[in-house]
Amino acid sequence: MHRFKISELGRNVFWLKGPEREHLVRVLRLAVGDQIIGFDNSGAEYKAVINKIEDQSVTCGIMEQDYPEVEARTQVYLAAGLSKGEKMEWVIQKGTELGMAGLIPLRTKRAVMKLEGSKAKDRVERWQKISSEASKQSHRVREPKLFPVSDWKELKTLLPSTTQWLIPYESEKTKTLQSVLRNFSPQEPIALLIGPEGGFDESEVLWAQENLQAQSVSLGPRILRAETAAIATLTLVLGHYGDLG
Amino acid sequence: MHRFKISELGRNVFWLKGPEREHLVRVLRLAVGDQIIGFDNSGAEYKAVINKIEDQSVTCGIMEQDYPEVEARTQVYLAAGLSKGEKMEWVIQKGTELGMAGLIPLRTKRAVMKLEGSKAKDRVERWQKISSEASKQSHRVREPKLFPVSDWKELKTLLPSTTQWLIPYESEKTKTLQSVLRNFSPQEPIALLIGPEGGFDESEVLWAQENLQAQSVSLGPRILRAETAAIATLTLVLGHYGDLG
Repeated sequence: MHRFKISELGRNVFWLKGPEREHLVRVLRLAVGDQIIGFDNSGAEYKAVINKIEDQSVTCGIMEQDYPEVEARTQVYLAAGLSKGEKMEWVIQKGTELGMAGLIPLRTKRAVMKLEGSKAKDRVERWQKISSEASKQSHRVREPKLFPVSDWKELKTLLPSTTQWLIPYESEKTKTLQSVLRNFSPQEPIALLIGPEGGFDESEVLWAQENLQAQSVSLGPRILRAETAAIATLTLVLGHYGDLG
Repeated sequence: MHRFKISELGRNVFWLKGPEREHLVRVLRLAVGDQIIGFDNSGAEYKAVINKIEDQSVTCGIMEQDYPEVEARTQVYLAAGLSKGEKMEWVIQKGTELGMAGLIPLRTKRAVMKLEGSKAKDRVERWQKISSEASKQSHRVREPKLFPVSDWKELKTLLPSTTQWLIPYESEKTKTLQSVLRNFSPQEPIALLIGPEGGFDESEVLWAQENLQAQSVSLGPRILRAETAAIATLTLVLGHYGDLG
């Protein structure tokens, strides 16, 4: 059954507007009487029937409300150094399927890509769309939050003060991810700092250790590309706490 | 230091030919006296200096031989349903970085892509190149083996009889990957059966359970795309046995 993000929720009814309405009418060509699933990022999922299709909205009658256990219990965020377009997009798509809670695009010293002002805002909007699509495809009921492009100093203000920060780092040879995770609490958010294509500058790692109490960890002896490190670390953290089967 | 696959190994010397020679001369424009690293898929790595550049080969003098502990201890193979070009390529690239031992491209019922005859052979050659490149980039000393495009019935003949088969499957609701891995031996090969874009047909899962004693496992409640399932399962298996830090 096709899934839609609810534009407005009423009593026993919801409405789809804008691009969600367009998609239902023009792409999927659904009609009055067809059944769909709506979600509103509250954690709920609504089985509904299309009642009315109008120029500005589609009205759907709710038949059933459910709270599926589809979201990861541990909130894992990615704070990922800006990488060239396609790589970031795939981290967002894969990260959403796997169950990340959100993503912070991070400005770093060695980043090839610079993003400022309205260009940054447009890009984040595009990323949010990719994440919304992947949320539907993977049957999530809460879309990951896409944060604005941020600097190191802003990180602390974006996530709760109880957030536990992790930073995979090539020069870390002793501490493994698994050993660090044993001392983390899965009840509090975890944020993964992932370098850009050229990796983090040493001063950035030191800054994160000092200011975020970030734990640097090794992902083993093979050199991973930035985007591979992002997805692998996310997978290992979610897997560690039983959030991937 | 740039890394090259050795074409021929002698005593205290090796030669680079064909595309490896081309890459060194034309793309990287290295010269006599420059240092490089060579590997020959034996597990060894050779630090060497360029002694002579000729039309057909580059001669390199070995200065140092090393056996770096860079390869995963557990041999994990992917048997992946054929998916459209780009997705397979990225599974091969990411799988190589993470440490897979090899990949079997598998013909499945729901595959959109068909590959037969010389087209299949060309494609595997292209995939082997992607894997070789990723091996260099991640500093591996053994390239993953790319098997020919295969049918279900051939699987048994390709890997050792002690291979332990795993099949992530949406309809498996109880057995988790972690619980199954606790009963596997990391000393014997593990092969992951990953569906194509449309997933496996139920009859294929039954066949694998019966004929390969494959264990079906759940990857949790979120629906993963085929390529995401491949990379996530590989990461979780390697992580479980301590092969990712």
